[in-house]
This record gives sequence, C-alpha cells and structure tokens, in this order.
Amino acid sequence: MKSLVVHQMLERTVQIAGKKEIVSGKTRLTYEEFYERVIRLADSLKKLGITKGTVVGVLDVNTHRYLELHYALSMVGAVIHTINFRLPAEDLAYTMFHAEDEWVFVSDMFIDATKPLASKFPKWVILSEKKEGLNIEGAKEQHFYEDLVSMGELKIPPQAETVSENDIYSIFYTTGTTGKPKGIRYTHRKILSGALQLFHHLGLHRTGASIDSSHTIMPLIPFFHIHAWGTAFAAPYLGLKIVLPERATPEIQVELIKKEEVNWLNMVPTQLHMLLDVPGFGGVKVLTGGSALPTGLAQKAWNVGVRFSLIYGGSDQLATSIAIVPDNMDINSQEAMNWLCSKMLPLPMAKVAIKDSNGNELPQDGKSVGEIWVSSPWIPGEYYKDPERSAEAYIDGWFRTGDLGIMHPDGSLVVADREKDAVKSGGEWIMTSVLEAVISEHPKVAMAAVIAKEDERWGERPLALIKASENLSKEEIRNFMEQKVQEGKIAKFWIPDDFIFVEDLPITSAGKINKAELRKKWGSKH
Amino acid sequence: MKSLVVHQMLERTVQIAGKKEIVSGKTRLTYEEFYERVIRLADSLKKLGITKGTVVGVLDVNTHRYLELHYALSMVGAVIHTINFRLPAEDLAYTMFHAEDEWVFVSDMFIDATKPLASKFPKWVILSEKKEGLNIEGAKEQHFYEDLVSMGELKIPPQAETVSENDIYSIFYTTGTTGKPKGIRYTHRKILSGALQLFHHLGLHRTGASIDSSHTIMPLIPFFHIHAWGTAFAAPYLGLKIVLPERATPEIQVELIKKEEVNWLNMVPTQLHMLLDVPGFGGVKVLTGGSALPTGLAQKAWNVGVRFSLIYGGSDQLATSIAIVPDNMDINSQEAMNWLCSKMLPLPMAKVAIKDSNGNELPQDGKSVGEIWVSSPWIPGEYYKDPERSAEAYIDGWFRTGDLGIMHPDGSLVVADREKDAVKSGGEWIMTSVLEAVISEHPKVAMAAVIAKEDERWGERPLALIKASENLSKEEIRNFMEQKVQEGKIAKFWIPDDFIFVEDLPITSAGKINKAELRKKWGSKH
Repeated sequence: MKSLVVHQMLERTVQIAGKKEIVSGKTRLTYEEFYERVIRLADSLKKLGITKGTVVGVLDVNTHRYLELHYALSMVGAVIHTINFRLPAEDLAYTMFHAEDEWVFVSDMFIDATKPLASKFPKWVILSEKKEGLNIEGAKEQHFYEDLVSMGELKIPPQAETVSENDIYSIFYTTGTTGKPKGIRYTHRKILSGALQLFHHLGLHRTGASIDSSHTIMPLIPFFHIHAWGTAFAAPYLGLKIVLPERATPEIQVELIKKEEVNWLNMVPTQLHMLLDVPGFGGVKVLTGGSALPTGLAQKAWNVGVRFSLIYGGSDQLATSIAIVPDNMDINSQEAMNWLCSKMLPLPMAKVAIKDSNGNELPQDGKSVGEIWVSSPWIPGEYYKDPERSAEAYIDGWFRTGDLGIMHPDGSLVVADREKDAVKSGGEWIMTSVLEAVISEHPKVAMAAVIAKEDERWGERPLALIKASENLSKEEIRNFMEQKVQEGKIAKFWIPDDFIFVEDLPITSAGKINKAELRKKWGSKH
Repeated sequence: MKSLVVHQMLERTVQIAGKKEIVSGKTRLTYEEFYERVIRLADSLKKLGITKGTVVGVLDVNTHRYLELHYALSMVGAVIHTINFRLPAEDLAYTMFHAEDEWVFVSDMFIDATKPLASKFPKWVILSEKKEGLNIEGAKEQHFYEDLVSMGELKIPPQAETVSENDIYSIFYTTGTTGKPKGIRYTHRKILSGALQLFHHLGLHRTGASIDSSHTIMPLIPFFHIHAWGTAFAAPYLGLKIVLPERATPEIQVELIKKEEVNWLNMVPTQLHMLLDVPGFGGVKVLTGGSALPTGLAQKAWNVGVRFSLIYGGSDQLATSIAIVPDNMDINSQEAMNWLCSKMLPLPMAKVAIKDSNGNELPQDGKSVGEIWVSSPWIPGEYYKDPERSAEAYIDGWFRTGDLGIMHPDGSLVVADREKDAVKSGGEWIMTSVLEAVISEHPKVAMAAVIAKEDERWGERPLALIKASENLSKEEIRNFMEQKVQEGKIAKFWIPDDFIFVEDLPITSAGKINKAELRKKWGSKH
C-alpha cells in the first residue's frame, strides 16, 4: 500500500492469513472469502452511485457484514457512519440527520425501530441472511445486502486507487450524558494510525492484554464505539482470527470463547461483571476501560485467570494510554494486578498532561489533581459542524478531556473522575471512582456509584448508591469505610454522608453507570 | 506530539523512562540527562546559524553524541547526513559534496582521515571528550561539541515547533558495489513510520528477535545504515536502555553484553560470525539481515541460545519483511530455526510482490523466481538529484529492489539473490545464496561465496570460493554436494564446476561478502 488507506490493508492480510477465519454467528468466512465479498460488494456500491464522500449509516450489531462494509465503503471512498443503536430514538435520528446519511444499511433486527425514519432517509439496504417478509415501509429505494454481494463483479472499483489517506473515512458520535451527541470525523490516516497504535503497544509493552498475531479475538465493544476500539482494523492488520458473537447472551459468549478458542477480548467493566457470573469464564486476556475498573471486580477476574489491561481514551481522542507493568514487576503478581487496573502510561507519540483551570501544566507528583489534556497525531481537532464546542475542547493541538487525573513521578496517569462526576467538598476534590473502588472491595457489594449531593456547609458531599449481593447494613459499610481510612486508602472526609441501597443501577448506552440519571434522582449537581 | 516529528518523541520518553540509561563507551546518561544535553546542543546549533534545511554531515561510530545529534538537529529543522565512514575516501567525499554538507561533525578518531576535506568544507565541529591537540587544519570555523553542549541554554529553540513531518530529516547513501553511491532522503514521517513499523511487528509477531520495552539493546549496525536500522528512534520511542559499544572488538562487545545485561542486538551475519568466535557469547536475541544467513552459521548461533529473526530491506526501501514463525510452530524447535533464517512475511502496510522482467506479478507458488518489488507508505520515491536511476527503481509507487525472490503459498518471501549475483546457467537461475547456505553446512567450512563464471556452453556456471576452518579437499566438498542433491536440497546442475580455497573473503563496508571484488578476480560477470 502506498499510504494509510483502510481497504489497502486487506491485500497483505489475504497474502499472509488468507485461510484464517472470521466467525460471525453461524457464518464462517476465510479472509480470502471475506475479501472476495468485499470486492463484489464494493462493485455493487459503485453501481448504486455510492462514491467519494457519500455518507452511509450502518445500524447493526457486530457481524461479518458490518466488517465487510468497513472495507467496501473505503474502496469506493464513502464515509461510514457507525450509528449507535443504543441511543434513545430521538438522539439516534439526530445523529443520522446531523451526519447527513444518504444511505442506511440496517440489520433485520433493527428494522422495526427505524420505521419512523423510513421516509426521511429514502435509500435503504437490509442486512440479513434471508429476504422473506423484510421490508422498509415508505422507503423510496430498497436493496438486500446479500444481493449486492452476489451480483457484484470480482473487480476492485477504480475509485479505490484515488482514495487518499486524508479523505474522511468515518463519522460517529460521542455518547455523553448531557447535551446533543457530538459528531467526530476521522480521516483514513488518523483512524488507522490511532487505532493501530494501541495494538502496537499491546505487543511492545508488558501488559495483561498483550497480543500477537497468533491470538483469536472477540470484540465485545460494538463497532459503533471507535470501530470496536480499533479491532475492525487490527484483526485484518495482524491476520487475527476474529469471532463476532453478533447478538448473544453472556452464556453464549462464553460458549463461543471455548469453542473458538478465543483468548483476547475487549469490553467495558460492566460486561466483565456479567461474564464473571457465567460459570467457566476465565483464562483470557481482556482489554477494558471506558470507566474505572473497581478493585473488587478486577480481583474477581484475576482469580479466574483473566489478565487485563486498562485503557484510557475516547471517541474524541482515540486511545492515549494503557496500563503497563514496570520492567521488574512479576506480571502475574498481586502487585501487577493493582497496577494494571489503575496506572496507565501514554502511548508513544501521545502526550498526556494534567493542567489546572488556567491551562498550566501541573507537576507529576502523584498528588496534584488536574484536568487531563492529551495530544497525538490522530486527534481529530474538531467536532463536526460544531465550532463552539470544538473551540472549547480542541485547543492548540490539545484535546481537553474533561476528566480529572493524577500523574505520578514514574510518568503514569491515574484517571480519577469525569470532572462533572467528582465531588467538591469544602473546596477539595473527592474522587468518586476511588470511593467506588473502595466500596466495591466489601464482599457484600455487587456494584456501587458515588454522586455529589448539594450541601449547605461544604458545597457538595458524597452520596453512595449500593447494589448489594447479600444483606448489608449501613453500619457495616460505614465501619468498613472507617477501616479504609485507618489503612490510609481514603481521607476521613471522603466517607459518604449516606449509603442508599438500590435494586439496580442504571447503565448508559456505552455500558457505564448512568450518573446523570442517578444525579437527577438522588443528587443535586448539574 | 502533534505529528511524526523526530524530536517530539523525547518528551514522552523522559516522562516514562527518564531514569533509564544510555551507555556509550565509558559515558552513562539517563534519558533525562540526555534530553537536557539535546536541548542545550540545539540551542547552540541555532546560535551557530544551523537552521531549517541546513545539511549537517556526521562522521562517527555509534556514540551518545551521534544519538544526541539525531534529536538536536531535528529540533532546529536541519538535515542529518549520516556519512558512511567505511566508504573509500573518494566515495566518502563524493557523498559529502553530493549531499551539500554545510557543516561536518567529526569524531576525533576520524580527524586524520578527513584532512584532505578540511578546506573544502569550511565549518567543522569535533566530537570528542577532550580538546587537547585536536585541530582541523585548514578549517575556517571549528568548534568543540562539548563546548556547544555546555554553553547552550536549557531552552528548546522556537524552530522546533515549526518543523513539519514532511520536512526532510535525513540523507544517506546506498553502499552498492557498482556505480556512484545513490543518495536517499527521508522525511520525518517516512523515517519514523518505516523504522518503527519494524519494531511494532517484532512485538506483534512470533519471531526470534521479539522485543518489548523491558529489553536492553545494543545496535551493532552503524547509525549510517538507516540510523542503525531504526534503533536511534526505537530506543527512545520504547524507553529502552541502549548500550553503544562505540569502537570495540567483539571481545569487548561480549563483555559489555554481560555487564550491561544486553538481550537484544542487531547485526549483519558477518558480525554474528565474529561474535560466535568469542567464548561466552550467546543467550541473546539478534535481528540480522543485509545478506543471507547461512544455515551453518544460524545453527551455530542457535546452539548457544541465540534466537534470531531475518529481516529484509535496505536504505532505499527501509524494512519490508521479517521472519515470523507460523502460529502453531514451537518457536524453540529446529523447524522454527530453519524458518527464521529464510522465510519472511511482509510487514503490515508493506506490500511485497515478485515480478517478471515485464513487470507482471508472478504467482505465490513456491517455485517462480522473480524480481522483488515492494511498496509501502515510507518508500522515498526517488534518489536525490538522480532522475535517471530514480526512474529505473521507483515505478508507480513501487520500488524495484533488484533482488530475486520466491513467494510461497503461505505468503512468505524467500530472498534468493541479488539479480546481479545470481548465476544463469542454460537459461535457468541458480541461486548462489542457497548454494552458499548448503556449502556452509559442511563442518569444515567457515565461509563460502559462489559467483558466476562465464561458460561457453551454458552461458554461466557457478564457482565456489571457500574459506575452510580445517583441511578440506575438493573431493570432500563435491561428495558433500552430491549428497545434498540426493537429499533434494539442490538440483544436480547447481553443483559448482570448481571449488577454490582462499585464505579469506573480502568484506564490503556494509559487512557483506564483496562479490564484485570476487567476480573481478575469479569470475567473469559484470
């Protein structure tokens, strides 16, 4: 390949790993077969008039078809809009209008949900195995994906050669808990270099989720989250066998892990929590992040042979830091476990700093808490059609993350909290993620969330919401916290003023605890 | 960092590996100290008027000063010309004139050799520990490197911010055995992405020379060969402890390996051959290439615990392939050894093909022999100020290597020979590298070279030149070759017509057997 253009990677993949498999639900394809389908599909896309700059929305779980679209759309120079199907209907529609989707490729499992949109987006393609009974009511134009594949010629469209690495490749939306979703567009070069840099350093550093080309991977992160955290590119790039569970329960996921000998997965901590409830899960490598990994959960995973690495990043910055074990530390020790679920080092070429509210860099002293700013060659630089929020977030080559963190003298970053999640009590920050981790260590706690509650005297005070796994009293947990103060884990004034026991905690579309909702109900901030 | 600019990498290195060491001869520096020296040096360079686009020649063995120049020159936007000190005086001067060196930084050990050039290049800096008795006669301007470092301010020059990834970073010359040296210039982006891609995949694939950030490396490849095969960048990039033996005998190199706990080296096969003669050498990882790795040498290294990977590339293409062991092969098996010294896979983003003389791609059938063509995002695209030879070598995004190779159905490349080194007998190619490997397997053979000799009937026939380690007769070696024919290793007609025993074999400045010289004396081709 001559430059960093997504579809150009596949040629080498077929050359060196042509017989390796992509397993998607009940479908098994070799990379050779996959490449052939991609080329045929691209030929059909070209004939449909999908060309340079056409924006194509895709609504699907992780399937081989979705993966094929990642490459076929690149071949015709189109822009893939990976639609977040977990968004509320209104926001979902907003992102499709905002991205200016000209075509929508929708899985048969989402057809009903998109009914109200059928007439607003005239051109549709249905992603399904069968055609019977499938119809987009009100659509002006409708095709079946498998027809496009089977009717396409085995001939790479000529525009494939004209796609430049600086052309826009994809658009997706941040799933913040406040405000309208923000659109981010990545060029071929930025998405490839950013997504793959993560994998380069999972190979080049001592982490729990280290990887090499002999691994079999199962991305549990959906494609709409940064292309499944880059695995849509990394798998062909390294010639990895990839297993896509499509829509599956944790039980089926575990079955698949065993059957297909999956040994590397990515997921958010909530998914890890669910998998750990399935008997037989363990002995795999897990890349996790997106929210803090509570010590209790980490320990439970570690005990069943799960080795993990925490990652820090996001839709608007891609990956910037991963947990890396120091040179002389035994990677299977308890010490390493504690390290891997908290301390992260910036990826090479990424720069991470913590700054005060005036934008001055704070020292790497293990104490100063500041906002995390990151810089890297793959930072997008703006939100799409949103100059105001762009100017707030992208400043002079930096991205202001809105997260709070601490940097240690060894260069490692500990992510403390989203700024809006932290509690400011008497002018001092209280890190809710640290509190949540400490609470989670109690054997009777299944899940915990800490939010800010308005307080006349202190401004704000922490309030803990706990999902208990067995009977737990306020006194028990308060005593446990006092003990943690004795151990030096937290300051005395960090102990929440109250502990409320709940049946369950609300989860966002990104699989994180929905603190906005908790604040609305129990707290008082924002 | 905002883009791929060489000096921007150092900030993270200091952040995460500030206390790790650079050992250079008797000097020990931490990366923190190194970075401080780089900044002070850059400030002085700026004051001397060295600025964007200034070409600076450097004549030195691998020292910490040379490594500092790699970063300080980047900070002022200058171009580093890494002069090949092993070139004959006339060619060396040619490259300095051709590159238009405005300044020359010369080690005290090369001062005498550069006397005739002193008046032709007016501005000189002497790289040395002491000043006494050092003088460039005839120089208009002369400085001492250590003065520049000590007098510079600890202030990054403002031009550091204006250097773009598409600015020229370095220039160096191919060390071909025929014709004038060819100049190649790399931008910051190309040299970084090409050099580092090699290291990414040493981490991400199963090879003998796999590496991670806990390794200690000793580059035995000089900086003038693609910046020591990229280690000038990879070491700070990964925060690796780096040991530079400066000018040292193999004995001293082995001492240093033990003392500094070096576990990863790069070198050409000839250097490996010399190290294996030193008692106690072994148990390290070695990246090797630049010429074929004879099976005999490989086995000897393997037996003392050296694990290696062969690499394919060159000054005019950077690295494009490395030996990678298949997923299911035991990496410590004899089978793996055979694999690692011959079969290479293209790096991701690099494309390798074999083509016939009309430029048509040949099949990956394990039989067809063709010229190797490579393509990658880091290919320079031209020889400097040499449109004629550029047009011959760089065609439509490809680089014609002039090497012959075979591609196997599994996608692996076996490099057979330089086209000009191969023997064409009765219209059929005979691969001298294969023959040399087979001859080297004989226990009494220390080194062997095969060249073409004109032949009335066949056009050309192979002639073997052998350096024996003990008494060896022509009959013995001929019988040995017959036996290899029986084993199916070579074709009967490949057996050389004659075997000539020599005291020693001539070595080029790149550490390869000088076949041009052998042909001049014994052969008849070219």
